[in-house]
Amino acid sequence: AASLADGFHTTRHPLEVVIFSNEEGGKTGSRALAGEVEDFELDIMTASGFSIGDGLRRLGGDPDRLTEVRRSPGSIEAFLELHIEQGAVLDADEIDVGVVEGIVGIMRWNVVVEGRTNHAGTTPMDRRADAMVGAAQFINLVHTTARRMSGKQVATVGRLEAEPGVPNVIPGRVAMTLEIRDLTMAGIEHVYDEIHSNLFRIETETDTSFSIQRFYTSRAAPTAPQIREVIETSAQRLGLSTHRMPSGAGHDAQSIALFAPVGMIFVPSISGISHAPEENTEPQDIVNGANVLLQTLLELDKR
Amino acid sequence: AASLADGFHTTRHPLEVVIFSNEEGGKTGSRALAGEVEDFELDIMTASGFSIGDGLRRLGGDPDRLTEVRRSPGSIEAFLELHIEQGAVLDADEIDVGVVEGIVGIMRWNVVVEGRTNHAGTTPMDRRADAMVGAAQFINLVHTTARRMSGKQVATVGRLEAEPGVPNVIPGRVAMTLEIRDLTMAGIEHVYDEIHSNLFRIETETDTSFSIQRFYTSRAAPTAPQIREVIETSAQRLGLSTHRMPSGAGHDAQSIALFAPVGMIFVPSISGISHAPEENTEPQDIVNGANVLLQTLLELDKR
Repeated sequence: AASLADGFHTTRHPLEVVIFSNEEGGKTGSRALAGEVEDFELDIMTASGFSIGDGLRRLGGDPDRLTEVRRSPGSIEAFLELHIEQGAVLDADEIDVGVVEGIVGIMRWNVVVEGRTNHAGTTPMDRRADAMVGAAQFINLVHTTARRMSGKQVATVGRLEAEPGVPNVIPGRVAMTLEIRDLTMAGIEHVYDEIHSNLFRIETETDTSFSIQRFYTSRAAPTAPQIREVIETSAQRLGLSTHRMPSGAGHDAQSIALFAPVGMIFVPSISGISHAPEENTEPQDIVNGANVLLQTLLELDKR
Repeated sequence: AASLADGFHTTRHPLEVVIFSNEEGGKTGSRALAGEVEDFELDIMTASGFSIGDGLRRLGGDPDRLTEVRRSPGSIEAFLELHIEQGAVLDADEIDVGVVEGIVGIMRWNVVVEGRTNHAGTTPMDRRADAMVGAAQFINLVHTTARRMSGKQVATVGRLEAEPGVPNVIPGRVAMTLEIRDLTMAGIEHVYDEIHSNLFRIETETDTSFSIQRFYTSRAAPTAPQIREVIETSAQRLGLSTHRMPSGAGHDAQSIALFAPVGMIFVPSISGISHAPEENTEPQDIVNGANVLLQTLLELDKR
């Protein structure tokens, strides 16, 4: 915006600069523009000791007027967001700019494997119903399925608890989490179905039984294809290398995508580190990102 | 012993009946006969709030005279122990009597898998060093190795802790236990070597590294082959079916085996349950076991 003012350039469309405060703590700001913030959320207590509503008041805001910021579909021609990647792909592959294909959707499940708790000394190998072995085969299945399929989906088993959890007892129960992310919800369901259709094999082989319950869903938010192309062309005209990629983390653009076309530009994070004191991006990469943002905005404004 | 007295039968060898109190809490009694109890053990505090030495005194014993009960090698011709199986093999296969081949040795290790903790959304599948996937492949390796090899060895991963252990982070570190039991220490080492020789494959495939530390060893105690045969023949003459098997749990016979030939007779445990209020054995099986014990003793006494 300062560069546009410096160059005495007036855009054809009205230009708004939005700073959503505390995007990392929650997308209350951008979600309010999409009309997604529900009354009960304002009463949620945060780690600060204040509710979200109280917090808004303490910062000079008015939670009672949140509905007034809502924007209607069609009222915004395009929304652009520049961000660090928060992953190591651009840094490792020495690519200047990431063209974001969308913010991935997320689904999470609790997975429970039931076997038979038994004496690890007196139970022969071929008479065991070892929930840990069932869980191990499941973790392998999750990893190889997500890796083998084409696309950029990811699947993770991050938490595992075995019961009773002692060296000399065959675990009778293992509880795990499964998380799948992809650019489309259909993609997530496809990975899940693929995993699920192979469960009977594990159940038969290990004499265990699985039960799976979904406990979390976050919708996928694709970016607008025409904006992706403009970002790509703008970067290439500046002599910068580009790579199309999903955003595995959440961003304000995913709220705005509910009612307007959005585009996102990524610049490299050194070693992929973010949300940590070591988070860093080379000054040249920040300049590159700002230039791609400016050129993309000017190009979109012409249309 | 009562049956022998009832029948006015005098054995050629001196016959001793030994009751080791609290065999389940620890084999202090039988280990004292083998001269295995060390001074420091008497000072160990137990859950009762008393040390083992104090406990002996409270029961009327004299810990200072423990060395006097020590028996020398060659002083005992044969030692026999009758016990419930504490497993489900005899019950499930409807076999009357188990002929114990020995009390298995036990080794336990702490296994640590190191990978890289990373964002489960922004890290592509082919750039992960997922310690949980490394651990899963290890658990499978342990299970299939012990199952595939001939013999009655067992191997178990009973405890697993993944860090940081949340649904949306790729685990960077997993700590597990490995336990292997077999009738010989060489057998245990053979299983371990087989597992260990395949570790590099998992490390390469999952980009993780393993470190393994042994923290517990219990020596294997084979029974005497000639006593096994007498037990088997005695049972068969009584019309009872027999099965040769290891004892996966510890027994007093394993202390005595350090200085004398031992034999062990198993009778079925219903559903393999032991050390629980549901522990039970059919009266007929107890009668069978006592008869095999008597006939074995009479046969050994003739030699």
